[in-house]
Parts: sequence; C-alpha cells; structure tokens
Amino acid sequence: MQPVVGVVMGSTSDWETMKQTCAVLEELQIPYEKEVISAHRTPDKMFTYAEKAYDRGIKVIVAGAGGAAHLPGMIAAKTVLPVIGVPVESKSLSGFDSLLSIVQMPGGVPVATVAIGEAGAKNAGLLAAKQLAPFDLDLYQRLQQYRQTMQDKVEASQKEFKTWRL
Amino acid sequence: MQPVVGVVMGSTSDWETMKQTCAVLEELQIPYEKEVISAHRTPDKMFTYAEKAYDRGIKVIVAGAGGAAHLPGMIAAKTVLPVIGVPVESKSLSGFDSLLSIVQMPGGVPVATVAIGEAGAKNAGLLAAKQLAPFDLDLYQRLQQYRQTMQDKVEASQKEFKTWRL
Amino acid sequence: MQPVVGVVMGSTSDWETMKQTCAVLEELQIPYEKEVISAHRTPDKMFTYAEKAYDRGIKVIVAGAGGAAHLPGMIAAKTVLPVIGVPVESKSLSGFDSLLSIVQMPGGVPVATVAIGEAGAKNAGLLAAKQLAPFDLDLYQRLQQYRQTMQDKVEASQKEFKTWRL
Amino acid sequence: MQPVVGVVMGSTSDWETMKQTCAVLEELQIPYEKEVISAHRTPDKMFTYAEKAYDRGIKVIVAGAGGAAHLPGMIAAKTVLPVIGVPVESKSLSGFDSLLSIVQMPGGVPVATVAIGEAGAKNAGLLAAKQLAPFDLDLYQRLQQYRQTMQDKVEASQKEFKTWRL
Amino acid sequence: MQPVVGVVMGSTSDWETMKQTCAVLEELQIPYEKEVISAHRTPDKMFTYAEKAYDRGIKVIVAGAGGAAHLPGMIAAKTVLPVIGVPVESKSLSGFDSLLSIVQMPGGVPVATVAIGEAGAKNAGLLAAKQLAPFDLDLYQRLQQYRQTMQDKVEASQKEFKTWRL
Amino acid sequence: MQPVVGVVMGSTSDWETMKQTCAVLEELQIPYEKEVISAHRTPDKMFTYAEKAYDRGIKVIVAGAGGAAHLPGMIAAKTVLPVIGVPVESKSLSGFDSLLSIVQMPGGVPVATVAIGEAGAKNAGLLAAKQLAPFDLDLYQRLQQYRQTMQDKVEASQKEFKTWRL
Amino acid sequence: MQPVVGVVMGSTSDWETMKQTCAVLEELQIPYEKEVISAHRTPDKMFTYAEKAYDRGIKVIVAGAGGAAHLPGMIAAKTVLPVIGVPVESKSLSGFDSLLSIVQMPGGVPVATVAIGEAGAKNAGLLAAKQLAPFDLDLYQRLQQYRQTMQDKVEASQKEFKTWRL
Amino acid sequence: MQPVVGVVMGSTSDWETMKQTCAVLEELQIPYEKEVISAHRTPDKMFTYAEKAYDRGIKVIVAGAGGAAHLPGMIAAKTVLPVIGVPVESKSLSGFDSLLSIVQMPGGVPVATVAIGEAGAKNAGLLAAKQLAPFDLDLYQRLQQYRQTMQDKVEASQKEFKTWRL
Repeated sequence: MQPVVGVVMGSTSDWETMKQTCAVLEELQIPYEKEVISAHRTPDKMFTYAEKAYDRGIKVIVAGAGGAAHLPGMIAAKTVLPVIGVPVESKSLSGFDSLLSIVQMPGGVPVATVAIGEAGAKNAGLLAAKQLAPFDLDLYQRLQQYRQTMQDKVEASQKEFKTWRL
Repeated sequence: MQPVVGVVMGSTSDWETMKQTCAVLEELQIPYEKEVISAHRTPDKMFTYAEKAYDRGIKVIVAGAGGAAHLPGMIAAKTVLPVIGVPVESKSLSGFDSLLSIVQMPGGVPVATVAIGEAGAKNAGLLAAKQLAPFDLDLYQRLQQYRQTMQDKVEASQKEFKTWRL
Repeated sequence: MQPVVGVVMGSTSDWETMKQTCAVLEELQIPYEKEVISAHRTPDKMFTYAEKAYDRGIKVIVAGAGGAAHLPGMIAAKTVLPVIGVPVESKSLSGFDSLLSIVQMPGGVPVATVAIGEAGAKNAGLLAAKQLAPFDLDLYQRLQQYRQTMQDKVEASQKEFKTWRL
Repeated sequence: MQPVVGVVMGSTSDWETMKQTCAVLEELQIPYEKEVISAHRTPDKMFTYAEKAYDRGIKVIVAGAGGAAHLPGMIAAKTVLPVIGVPVESKSLSGFDSLLSIVQMPGGVPVATVAIGEAGAKNAGLLAAKQLAPFDLDLYQRLQQYRQTMQDKVEASQKEFKTWRL
Repeated sequence: MQPVVGVVMGSTSDWETMKQTCAVLEELQIPYEKEVISAHRTPDKMFTYAEKAYDRGIKVIVAGAGGAAHLPGMIAAKTVLPVIGVPVESKSLSGFDSLLSIVQMPGGVPVATVAIGEAGAKNAGLLAAKQLAPFDLDLYQRLQQYRQTMQDKVEASQKEFKTWRL
Repeated sequence: MQPVVGVVMGSTSDWETMKQTCAVLEELQIPYEKEVISAHRTPDKMFTYAEKAYDRGIKVIVAGAGGAAHLPGMIAAKTVLPVIGVPVESKSLSGFDSLLSIVQMPGGVPVATVAIGEAGAKNAGLLAAKQLAPFDLDLYQRLQQYRQTMQDKVEASQKEFKTWRL
Repeated sequence: MQPVVGVVMGSTSDWETMKQTCAVLEELQIPYEKEVISAHRTPDKMFTYAEKAYDRGIKVIVAGAGGAAHLPGMIAAKTVLPVIGVPVESKSLSGFDSLLSIVQMPGGVPVATVAIGEAGAKNAGLLAAKQLAPFDLDLYQRLQQYRQTMQDKVEASQKEFKTWRL
Repeated sequence: MQPVVGVVMGSTSDWETMKQTCAVLEELQIPYEKEVISAHRTPDKMFTYAEKAYDRGIKVIVAGAGGAAHLPGMIAAKTVLPVIGVPVESKSLSGFDSLLSIVQMPGGVPVATVAIGEAGAKNAGLLAAKQLAPFDLDLYQRLQQYRQTMQDKVEASQKEFKTWRL
C-alpha cells in the first residue's frame, strides 16, 4: 500500500527510539515508509525528500533527531506538509538540547513537537494517526478502540494493584 | 461557515498570545471558533468541549495555557482529535514551565507542541492549516502562496539590507 | 477502618516511589486507600474519584505522577479537599518536568508539592499526617514520637560516627 | 478571634507577595496572624515561634521566603504542624532558587510547596483553607462557594470573549 | 576589495546584534559582505550561498540566528569553510535555546560557537580575524595592536577608578 | 591537639563526600573535629554547636548537605565564624538544588560555597587552610608545598603523556 | 592603614555591584584596596597582582566577574591566599553562567563563592571580615554588633509590620 | 613535520575525550602536538605555551577542559591565534558548567566553542582543519573527501536500513 506517513531519522542509532513510531503506525494499520536522512551529512537528500513527499502521497512526516536537531525544522522549511519532531535523548544533556532545537521554531515554520525519547516517538505515531483520523472514519474508529484498550489496561492493572502489599 | 479548528485558552489574559493563532487562520480562510475554557476552574466544561468537538465537525484543536499548563493534555485525553499545545509565557519562569507541562506527555496521549509565546501561537495556526491541507487542495495552494510570500519578504528585506551601513 | 487518606498514582510503575507514602501512613496508623488512576488514560474515573472523595470520608489526597504530570492538579480542580502532589522521577529530565508540572499551578487551585522521588513520597505521607494531627491528639503524639525517633537515630549515628576513620 | 493560620515571611519586602495569602484568608473568614521572622537574621525567634505555634492554637503555618529560602524548612523542623512554603520571586534567578530551596526537603521533614510568586502566595492561603475544611463544615461550604464563583467568572468572561474580534 | 568574510543572519531584526561583527571587521580592515538569509524561509538561497562561498573567495562565514537556530549548522553542512555561529538573544529563553541549537552539533559538522548576543557577535568578528591572521602578517599585527589597545583601556580605566569613592 | 576546623554534615551518608575535606586537613596537619548534625532532624543541636564553636577555639566551620540544604546557611546565621558550604550531590537533580540552596544566601549572612560533590569537599578543606594560613607561617609554607606538589604531578604526567599514542 | 583585603573586578562596569563589598568593609573598619584587573584583557597584571598580594600584607582577595568569569579562579591559581568570588549578574543568563564559572572549580584550587549580584557582593565583604575575625578580637566584636543591629532592624520592622493592613 | 595545531587539555583524564580531536587531525594528515597543561595547577606554563605558540608555527590551538573550565579562555587571552574550546563532560552537571564557562566569553576575547564531550572533541579537530583549508588546497580536497565519505556512509546505512524490521 502507498505510504501516507514518512518516518525519517538522522542516523540508524536513532532507530532504537524511532521504532516506537513505526510500531504504533503498524498497530493502527497506517502505511508508512522509513528513511535515514541526515540534515548535516546528506542535506541535499533531505531537501529532495521534503520537496517530493507531497507528490508521492505522504500526508504527515515524522522526523527524529538529537542534539542540535535540525532535521525536523529543515524538512518543515521545504514542504507544506505537517512535520512532527521527536527529540531523541542526547548523551550529555539528556535530550534537553534536542527539545529546544526542535520546538523553538520561529513564526512561519512550525514543527509539532512531542516528548523526549521513546514516549515521544510513540506519541509521534499516534499524533500522525490523529491528524489523519478526521478524514478516515475507519482509522478514527481504530483510534477510539486503541484508546479504549489503553483505558482497559489501566483498569485491569488497578484491580490487580488493589491486592498489592508493601 | 462551520468551524473546523477550535482555539481554546485558559483565560482571557491568554488572548494577547492566542490571537496570533486566530489571525493566521483568518488569513488562510480557515473557519474556527474560539473559547475560554479553564482546565482548573471549569474542568467539566473542558471535558464536554473535548468530547463533543469531533461531532461538531472540529478537525483540530489548538489549546494555549501557561504555568502548570494542563489544558492541552487533558483535552487530548478526552478526544481522538489532534491537539496542538501553545505554551503561554509565564511570569516567573518565562514559559519554561508551560513548555515542559505541555510537551512531556506520557506515551499514549500526544500533544503537538509549538514554541513558547506569540511565535508559537502563530505557528499553531499554521500547523492546523498544514494538517488540513493534504485533504483540501485549495488550502494547500493558499499555504504554498503563504510560504512564497514569506520568502518574497525575506528577499525584499535582503535587497534593502544591502544598503544599510553601520 | 474507614480510609482518611487517598493515595493515587498514574500507573503501577509509580508504586516503587509511592509505596514510601503508604509505608509512612501505616507506620503512623493512618487508614488509607490506594488507587491507580491515570489523568490521561482514565480521565473520567479521575473526575469521579475526586468528586466523591469527600463524601467517602477522605480528608487528604496524595497524587503521584511523572513527566507532564497532570494528575495532582486535575484532582485538585475537582475537589475542595487538599491535594499533595509527588513529582515522580522521569526518564529524561529526572523529574524536573514532573516538578514544574505539579508545583506551578495557577492562582485558585493549589497543589501542595513535595520533593522529587522517594524522599518526596515519604514526605507526602508525613504531610498528610501533619494536616490531620491538629484535629487528632493521638496522631499528634505519634507524630511527635516519630520526630523524636528520627532525632534519636541521628544522635546514635553521630556517636558511632565519632569512631570512624578515613 | 483566635488565629488558626500563622503567616510568616523573612522580610517586609516579601509583603507584596505574601499579602495575597492574607487576602484569601480574610475572604474565607479564617482568623490568622502575620509576622516578619527571618531564618538568618532572627533564628532564635524563628525557633520560638515554631515551638509555640501549636500551643497557641495555630493549625497551619504559611512561610514565604526567597533565594536560599530556609524559613519554611526550618520551621517545619521545629513543629509537628503542617508548613506551606511560598517561593518568593528572587532578583537574579526569578525564584527558581527559592523553589528548589523549599521543595527539595529531605525525607522526614516535609514542606507543602506552592508556585513561585503571587499565584503561589494566593494558593498558600487556599491550601491552608483546604486543610482546615474537612474539619469545619462552614468553611467547607465557603470554599465550595469560592470555587463556584471562580467558575462563574470564567464562564462570564467566556461570554464576553465570544464578542471579541482581532 | 574582494570580501573574505561572509556575515549572514536570519532576519533584519538580527542586525542590531550582528552589526557588532561588522564593526570589528571594519575596524580591522577585513573586507566582508553581509546578507539576510533565512534557514527556514529561504532555504534554497541558504544552500546556494553556502555552496558558492568558497569559489567567491570567502574564507570564513559568520552566521547569527535565534531560537531554534538552524542557520549556522545548515550552512556548515553545505561548505568546507569554517562557520562561526552567533546565538542571538531570543524573547522567552534569553538565547539559551539559540545557544544549544548552535553549539550541540553532531560529530562531523562543527560550528564555532561564541557567546549569546552582542558580546558574542563582536567576538565572532574577532574570531574570523584570528583565523585569518596566521596567514596574513599585516592583519596579525593589527590584531596585536587591537589587543594592546584593549589592555591600555583597562589600565587607563584602572587609574581613574583609583579615585572613585563609594 | 585542639581542633580549629569543625567539619559537620547532615547524615553519615554524606561521609563518602565529606571525607575528602578531612583527608586534606590531615594532609595539611590541621586539627579538626567531625560531627553528624542535621538541620532538619536535630535543629537544636545545630544551634548549640554553632553558638559554642568560637569559644571552643574553632576558627572555620565546613558544612556539607544535599537537596534543600539548610545546614550551612543556618549555622552561618548562628555564629560570627566563617562557614564553608559543600553542596553534596543529590539523587534527582545532581546537586544543582544543593548548590542553589547554599550559595544564594541573602545579604547579611554569607556562606563560602564550593563545587558540588567530592571536588568541592576537597576544596573546602583547602579553603579552610587558606583562611588560616595568613596567620600561621608554618601552614602557609605547607600550603605552598602542597601547591608545588600538585604542579609537579601535572608536569610529571605531562612527560608521560608525551609518549601516549592513539 | 595597610590594606588587608584586596577587592578586584574585571571592569569598571562591575563597580555598581562590587561597591557593596567595599561599603561593608568600610562599615566594619577593615582597610582594603580596590583594583580593576581583567583576566582576559590584562592577564599578566592579574598574575602579578596575585603573586604579590601576600607580601603586601593582603589576607583575603575578593574578585568579582561576570559571564565566563575566570578572574576569581585564576587569581586563586596564583596565590595561597583565600579568594572569594562574586558572580556578577550577566546580560543574557542573569549571572547563572557567572555562578557556574566561579563555583565549579576543580579539586586543588578553591574559590569561596557567594550569591549572584549585589547580595553576594555585600556578603563577600562580610565573609572577608568573618575570615579575619577569629584573629582580631576587636573585629570579632564589631561583627557581633553588626549582627545584633541586623537582628534589631528585623525586630523593629516586625513591630511596624503588625500595624500594616491589606 | 612541524605541528600546526596545538591540542592542550587540563589533565590526562581529559584524554579519553580529547583523543577524538587527535584522531581527526591524523586522519586528515595535519601535524599536531598534544600537551597536558592545567590552567589552575600550572598557570605559568599555560601562559608561556600561549605566548610562544605563534612563533613555533602553531596556527590553531584546541583546548579541552571541564567544570569551571578556564583553560581555553585564558589561552585566548594570551595569544592572537584562534582558540577552539572543548567542554569536557563534568561529573555532576554533565558538562553544562564546562560549556557556559567556555562559551560565555566577554567581548574582545573569543573562544570558538564546540559541543560537550566526544562529538565536540571530534568537531574541534575538523574545525581546526576547516580554518586551515582555505589556505591549503590539498587539505581542502581531503576535507571535501572526508565529507563525501560521511555522506556515503549515511547513504549506505540507509540502504541496509530499508531492510530492517521492527
């Protein structure tokens, strides 16, 4: 099936984080593609990717990067498609640098930023789904089901939890 | 026309920031509604708003709040629609608390977070537009035009700038 | 016995931290209940819990959560009971995000915030006890005894410490 | 009437912030006393105040201080009464130092910390009221009324807000 | 004369800061050019500028930007020339976001980062001069003279300072 | 011999850090005493210790504590002797809270603050020695020797380092 | 009279802060000298000053600097005398950079760091006095008097404060 | 061959980080020297090194240090050569203190700062190469080759990546 979400990351070392995005997309049956594209080491490829994504049928791009993370913002500069940025946890500053480099975009070029690390990567997949859902009733219902399942799990864990002792 | 974007904020004092969102939506001719809803002072109204938004035809919700900003995340917890969170600049910590309270959502409930303050509010409007654009060719073209105009302005300012002296 | 303190947390993974609260309550013989309630995954249950707590005889609620921690503040929005918030240590930002999301509440809806992590969870139990103590002479005396024991332990450790060498 | 809340602050320069606490207590008709006591300049007076507060009928102490703020924690060390700490906004670090000095108490000696500055001071008064309310039905009802009024104000502002234009 | 330093900035609003760079270059008689190029609004122009700078005789590029500042790093990705990055003071986070977005570059693509704001912009000019000086004896001597003048000024101010009273 | 430096810490768990202070004092042959005194758990003992230190011949007090670290500042409030504060590394915030709680003292009551953790504890011992040295020629010479030895070690390591290969 | 305290600062612009140090020294009748010495613009003069201070009878050096503040640490590297460092408030980062540059010294070369800005500068003067006091009974008594006066002022303000109304 | 880059660090413990600089210089065939010089423990040697570097043919100095890192800035104060500063990761504050101590230099004395830790050290070597390249065509071509190789590696990893599954 034709991918509608593009998942890009700066390096294969980001896969450990970004596979959370792909796992959610698979679970929700959303066709996606995944690419390693580096803003700093393959800048031309990044621009080409961003320029052509719309014409290839992509409707949302998820971009993950760490440190002085420029990938999400630069892709956003080259496409009208919505871009979701995932701040990958960095070595010294724990992703705090990644977060500010992604979220503090100037007026005119937004990046939809999620939490640092794996929780954020998972949420990037869900956010992509939520953006598509208002235009896809089946997906909307799968998302509602996803949410119901989350809720059921909390309620099940709550029951078991009642029996826990110090 | 039927609004497709809901712009909500915790207090009328957030309007100074959040009107940037509305200005962009108007410029791009996207019908929207605006509401003051407080997570902490009108929690039931917040839940009702979130629950009914989809059925009223809303496709994206933009929520702005400051300090321990719970409005975007709690709305996201109550709807399958995508929620964009705007960290409003706070008094003591300059919106740094607002940013972390909005962006660091747990896995399962994403909020698409933008920059602190007015630049972020403006970008929230653009992000809403970008989410709708893949499903609305006219809007897509208006967005491309918007981007072209931005670019033209930079290039015009560049010409004038060449003549500036110290 | 009828519980007077409600200890709630967003997930069973918070138990490792929050059991410190329960251990103190048991030590001080204060009847309590414990629940897993997620602000983001079971929001309606959270509202119901908060609304009914007073009528069930609860006098203080302790709520622990991490990251963009909305549980303590949202419970506080739905009850007149005092709410104590415990910032659970988060993965990337060490609970700094949890702290700001809990403590920086807007005027009108307070949360009594304690330190990040286990020390804070323990202190949440003590704070609950201190709030009840002015109205319960027996508890007041147990708290005084608790404090005396702490002091005795420091003094005993001081004696042994005198003998330590480099 | 016999004061049940003690409001203390390190210097008269903290009054601008701490009068928010007193204003709330007056509005809720809770008798209180106010004192200037400095942890660093009048340490003995601080200890005496803390030691005698319970016997004088005080049931909650609110302490505001800025910078390396030791007043709330040291009072908490000398009494079994609950202590609410207000981080006063400091000159260079905007109250961030005040916040950490108050909230990060070691296990055994809690301080119920609220937000930095005036919003926190106001909330300290409300938190004191909430601690007393479970044992005072009249106060409980006044607090419920206070909350209803807050909600009504948001709803009234919402109506007017609907008419605002860019 | 043929410019050897290229001074670029994201917007004319950065000129207030970046003119410090140009003032130093003029004082040291280093030919330079200045341009407004936006990473996010004129990305293609940015790439073209970076690609052609070496062939036009440019030997150092100074790039100033604020917020999620991508201009210095993206230019560095597209040229082998050394790039000096100036973090322009941003509105909410005082340039702290600009600093991290510029300095925390991944291995392989360095940006020579200077201090936030005007002091940094001035130092960017001096750093460009220092990079050229080992290959230009005249410039080396002008730089030594510059340094001597700085030292003389401190020593002159010291003499006057001796006469100051409280 | 009569101790001239008092080394105090809030808990025996601080010994791992604070033994660095004692090791330096022993190396420089400065008589000292060491005590476990908790600001929050043994506040009266802390006051007594501070009040009597001068009369017992103590000339400098070194106090180490972590988190909301009140020990150094409260001792400083109760004695005219100079107090050196050591921020002990804390669990969640890495001693950043300890540092601000110790260094940001209000005008009138100084604490001489050193670096977080073991390097700071070692330096506290040296700082105590430096304060005594102007009044004790023998100690002054031992300190000069200490410094010479440090320098010799760096120079020796430099020689060996020259032989290191990648 | 022969100065026993040397007050140095990086620039005359630091005088606004550092005059607080001098004011306290005058009030306590401690002879001092004041100098403008820049670590970065007059490094040789800095080394000479540090090397000769002891022989000229100086017993404590107070050094104030802002930003990447190297003056206190480099003076400490060149003398056995105790050095007190005052972090001067910086433009973009409010003295937070000054604080870390001064306090985080490596093991072997301590700097006694005080609070950021004017409160810290005042405390630097007091800390110098406290270091001298154990060896100068008259000064010790003046310091005790100073402390008593501070306490009296708080108590006087407390009396007046009792009459204040909201 | 005559070294043109001087790599200095405060202690042999910085070698683990700084060897990344040397590895890049070797890979690019740039002759260099490496030295252990401590700003705080061997300050005179540091000044001599900086003063003589130019005459010995050095064209760029790379200096790595951690904590209150004064080595890069003080070397910069003593030479007209460009100085690249590497913030070495520190124990408690993860190199955040090192970064601010190096980058926030006052106007007049720049340090070209790179990222914290190993990525920064590697980039320091590349930045030195980039500064030399405009004056050395062979080196310029090796740098272009280096960049091409980086790009090829990303593209190769991208091909393999396409085959990865969750």
